[in-house]
Amino acid sequence: LPEARQRTAVPGVATGLAVTGAGGDVLYVEASLADAETGSTGVALTGQLGDVMKESAHIALSYLRSRGAELELPVADLKDRGVHVHVPAGAVPKDGPSAGVTMTTALASLLSGRPVRGDVAMTGEVSLTGRVLPIGGVKQKLLAAHRAGITTVLIPARNEPDLDDVPAEVLRELDVRPVSDVREVLEVALESATAPAAAAA
Amino acid sequence: LPEARQRTAVPGVATGLAVTGAGGDVLYVEASLADAETGSTGVALTGQLGDVMKESAHIALSYLRSRGAELELPVADLKDRGVHVHVPAGAVPKDGPSAGVTMTTALASLLSGRPVRGDVAMTGEVSLTGRVLPIGGVKQKLLAAHRAGITTVLIPARNEPDLDDVPAEVLRELDVRPVSDVREVLEVALESATAPAAAAA
Amino acid sequence: LPEARQRTAVPGVATGLAVTGAGGDVLYVEASLADAETGSTGVALTGQLGDVMKESAHIALSYLRSRGAELELPVADLKDRGVHVHVPAGAVPKDGPSAGVTMTTALASLLSGRPVRGDVAMTGEVSLTGRVLPIGGVKQKLLAAHRAGITTVLIPARNEPDLDDVPAEVLRELDVRPVSDVREVLEVALESATAPAAAAA
Amino acid sequence: LPEARQRTAVPGVATGLAVTGAGGDVLYVEASLADAETGSTGVALTGQLGDVMKESAHIALSYLRSRGAELELPVADLKDRGVHVHVPAGAVPKDGPSAGVTMTTALASLLSGRPVRGDVAMTGEVSLTGRVLPIGGVKQKLLAAHRAGITTVLIPARNEPDLDDVPAEVLRELDVRPVSDVREVLEVALESATAPAAAAA
Amino acid sequence: LPEARQRTAVPGVATGLAVTGAGGDVLYVEASLADAETGSTGVALTGQLGDVMKESAHIALSYLRSRGAELELPVADLKDRGVHVHVPAGAVPKDGPSAGVTMTTALASLLSGRPVRGDVAMTGEVSLTGRVLPIGGVKQKLLAAHRAGITTVLIPARNEPDLDDVPAEVLRELDVRPVSDVREVLEVALESATAPAAAAA
Amino acid sequence: LPEARQRTAVPGVATGLAVTGAGGDVLYVEASLADAETGSTGVALTGQLGDVMKESAHIALSYLRSRGAELELPVADLKDRGVHVHVPAGAVPKDGPSAGVTMTTALASLLSGRPVRGDVAMTGEVSLTGRVLPIGGVKQKLLAAHRAGITTVLIPARNEPDLDDVPAEVLRELDVRPVSDVREVLEVALESATAPAAAAA
Ligand SMILES: [Ca+2]
Ligand SMILES: [Ca+2]
Ligand SMILES: [Ca+2]
Ligand SMILES: [Ca+2]
Ligand SMILES: [Ca+2]
Ligand SMILES: [Ca+2]
Ligand SMILES: [Ca+2]
Ligand SMILES: [Ca+2]
Ligand SMILES: [Ca+2]
Ligand SMILES: [Ca+2]
Ligand SMILES: [Ca+2]
Ligand SMILES: [Ca+2]
Repeated sequence: LPEARQRTAVPGVATGLAVTGAGGDVLYVEASLADAETGSTGVALTGQLGDVMKESAHIALSYLRSRGAELELPVADLKDRGVHVHVPAGAVPKDGPSAGVTMTTALASLLSGRPVRGDVAMTGEVSLTGRVLPIGGVKQKLLAAHRAGITTVLIPARNEPDLDDVPAEVLRELDVRPVSDVREVLEVALESATAPAAAAA
Repeated sequence: LPEARQRTAVPGVATGLAVTGAGGDVLYVEASLADAETGSTGVALTGQLGDVMKESAHIALSYLRSRGAELELPVADLKDRGVHVHVPAGAVPKDGPSAGVTMTTALASLLSGRPVRGDVAMTGEVSLTGRVLPIGGVKQKLLAAHRAGITTVLIPARNEPDLDDVPAEVLRELDVRPVSDVREVLEVALESATAPAAAAA
Repeated sequence: LPEARQRTAVPGVATGLAVTGAGGDVLYVEASLADAETGSTGVALTGQLGDVMKESAHIALSYLRSRGAELELPVADLKDRGVHVHVPAGAVPKDGPSAGVTMTTALASLLSGRPVRGDVAMTGEVSLTGRVLPIGGVKQKLLAAHRAGITTVLIPARNEPDLDDVPAEVLRELDVRPVSDVREVLEVALESATAPAAAAA
Repeated sequence: LPEARQRTAVPGVATGLAVTGAGGDVLYVEASLADAETGSTGVALTGQLGDVMKESAHIALSYLRSRGAELELPVADLKDRGVHVHVPAGAVPKDGPSAGVTMTTALASLLSGRPVRGDVAMTGEVSLTGRVLPIGGVKQKLLAAHRAGITTVLIPARNEPDLDDVPAEVLRELDVRPVSDVREVLEVALESATAPAAAAA
Repeated sequence: LPEARQRTAVPGVATGLAVTGAGGDVLYVEASLADAETGSTGVALTGQLGDVMKESAHIALSYLRSRGAELELPVADLKDRGVHVHVPAGAVPKDGPSAGVTMTTALASLLSGRPVRGDVAMTGEVSLTGRVLPIGGVKQKLLAAHRAGITTVLIPARNEPDLDDVPAEVLRELDVRPVSDVREVLEVALESATAPAAAAA
Repeated sequence: LPEARQRTAVPGVATGLAVTGAGGDVLYVEASLADAETGSTGVALTGQLGDVMKESAHIALSYLRSRGAELELPVADLKDRGVHVHVPAGAVPKDGPSAGVTMTTALASLLSGRPVRGDVAMTGEVSLTGRVLPIGGVKQKLLAAHRAGITTVLIPARNEPDLDDVPAEVLRELDVRPVSDVREVLEVALESATAPAAAAA
């Protein structure tokens, strides 16, 4: 069973894609909500995240906080329950805006209780209005997704021209979906609430 | 359909103008208000904003907080709803006071529910009393607005002499409006509440 | 109409004097109070103010907070209404203690609703007990006030000897008032509440 | 009586393993909860912990705060009782993610009142969902555990290949348990509540 | 009338002594309490104070907060009224522990409403239990006090040997009082509440 | 009367031992609690304490906050009364974990109202569970205690071997007590509540 399927077996975890010194890699964004009875509030961000990546987490949260009704998410849970967003591995510094869609998806999964599909990975900056903005490293990211056994990858629509650089055999085995609004990401990536991941460990 | 029209289709987004290493460029100031039930309060500012630009956001907020009645804006919404101002792209550092009018307009649009006109861009520092103070880079900014399909540009009245440097063919296709108070900006830039942007995506 | 008269047309703005790289200059201290219904509290200081100048703002506020009854100012307004003190231009770093009288005057004007006279400028450090302490650059500051059309300038009494260096023709056209307590500044500079600036734009 | 048995005699202390300049070493993670009547709240982290190790403590706390019901831990105690996590010796800087399992265990021991077994040591990064992620220095850590009289060591399952480098005579005297979820650590390491450490000093 | 008498005419101001680059100098510690109705709380420290001098202010406050009953001071006033301690001149950096007695005296004067005697200056570190600890620069400080028209100077008892270095004619005109507890300072320096400074400006 | 006896005459002061550039020295840890009516809360730490020494103070407080019932200390006093820990002299930077026992003792003395014995000094790191951990400079510290007229010194049990380096004539005049738990320190060092220091100044 591929790693991504195990990692995303519980609501609150989404599979992202990063460019590293050694090509591309899969990363997991994990989100949790404290039990209300613990009295925890506020937002914790861990995983040695740089300034830009921390801002992505705040943008994802504000997007959900302002669109809760529209997205049918129980955002009132955020009032009395501290949110924590973590990106393992804990000692590896990470930065950049391209985990925006992944953070938004992990948080929407957590709030809705709908797990993220284990065969889906994603990359893209998100604006405060939910627009998916272009990012770099499409080729390395698709190669990394393919190596990790991912079969569907969501990329920003404005990055479609970058697909020219991706080997045809990789594109053949991947379902690459260009998106321009993060709602499209949520529609593809979230399992239905009534069909929980049967294969989860 | 030009980008600016899509970006400003929802209330809370205004089109600004910036000087970059490569001439001028259009930028979008996005503002959001958290649902009151999320318990979010305070002000978040993202987009790798420098000190001066963060101060512009605080000046814009204080201007609206102290002139709410006069401007007929429901500023009491700011009490229990966290405000977030973001300026994409998330990884590009930005600074300077010239987004003051754009920030004020994005926030007034958000509070009033009146979208900003998609054919209007603006530049200008704002003082705490709402005066529009002069800025730099008028020529590059007007050229960028023109390239982006903008047809109306608001500039500080004290920058009118800089129009001498702008090519006549650009000025012919732009409606350039010199302003000295930010209320003039709001009067020109905000759509009427009863006539929502029909062309919005 | 001179700039200073326009800038000080609303309560909360006072005209100060600064020494810059290019001689002296007029600066405006602007103060605002948030509407109580916005829930804003605390103190915001903007305009790229240095440590010493920020301390001047806190001294001005503490002076007014501790002398409210004596000065017949409605200081209870400070409880539920956030204060913002801004000194344009927003991108120019400013520092030093000599805006103390100007900050105290802007805030007293704001609280009392009495505008500051548009023909008056001022300079002087203020102590926590309201004493006006000496500052530097008297000559450059008086020249700048004169150039800006100001007719009355308040200076610290202990700076009177510096007037020897000011050209006689400038002194002839200026009413220079040495003061040793900030209450003298307020008496001279604030318009009466019942006679609002008729000439204001 | 070995040191580890004394140190872990009270609930709230777990034995970890670290790589130091001079090979490996045993370290103790200590956790305490303030009496509710002291009014203390929040989280204190001491022991000259680096950024990554502080994040490990926050991840451990968030894991427990979000899984309290599932783990049958009285996490409501965290509401009105300040938590303190300390790692002696106080003057030695420490960093890295590998104390994640030890921190989670010390906190779970504290909350449950079940002491940690004195013959057990552990190492492993923990993710926000409780997964045990691989760490470095397995050989040095097992040698240090062996020297300290530890008989059971919990390591990340993904570190099993590193056991090849550990001398056979050490492995013979150690019960090394590879784990992939921090719940497995808690099951092995926590004494039953009804059988308190009789040998404790 | 000497400067010190004017400065200390109101409760809350005490005359201290400092060593500067150019020998010794008199300094004034000013303290104020916000009107309770302004909602101000907390402690503000201004005058470009260094770390050690800020700590002196906190020690002075804690001493008074813990000994209020014993000293018959209305310390409950500190609950709802923000305290501000300022040391002019605002642009001159100041540091060191020797203003401890001066800060304690200014605050005790403020709370009691008893002005500080205008002919008294003081120097000395204060411990949290009110002990007066030795300081440096006794000679320069006494010379400065003498020049400023001060007639009584309080110094730490442990600094008595330093009086050997002070010119006899200066000592003849000064009443130098060695003290070992800050209560002795308060007894000497505070005017009686019923005999307000008649000579005050 | 030796200095230490005077300094520890009131509850809340304990005598510690430090290594300085010039051998060893005695230091005093002073603790105070604000009157509840002052509204002060929180923890203040002064005396130019380094990071490690500040952490020692937090460990001492957390130890007492979590063991209040067991130690029969009225820790509920900490709820509404700000704590201040100061280590004179105020201008001398201090660091290291070896004042842990001294800080714990000063705070326990303050809470219990039992003064610390004036003939006792102590050194030792404290862990969060109250264990006394070894420190450096035993020889210099014992020599300093002896010079200061101290007759009983508490040291960590694990530092007993260091006594070999201390001159026999010093050991003969000192009662050196090795301890492994901070409760042993409190039992030796605190006067009984019913027998207040008669000799105190
Ligand atoms: Ca950065
Ligand atoms: Ca495909
Ligand atoms: Ca800057
Ligand atoms: Ca035109
Ligand atoms: Ca500075
Ligand atoms: Ca004149
Ligand atoms: Ca780091
Ligand atoms: Ca084995
Ligand atoms: Ca310092
Ligand atoms: Ca004398
Ligand atoms: Ca340090
Ligand atoms: Ca002995």
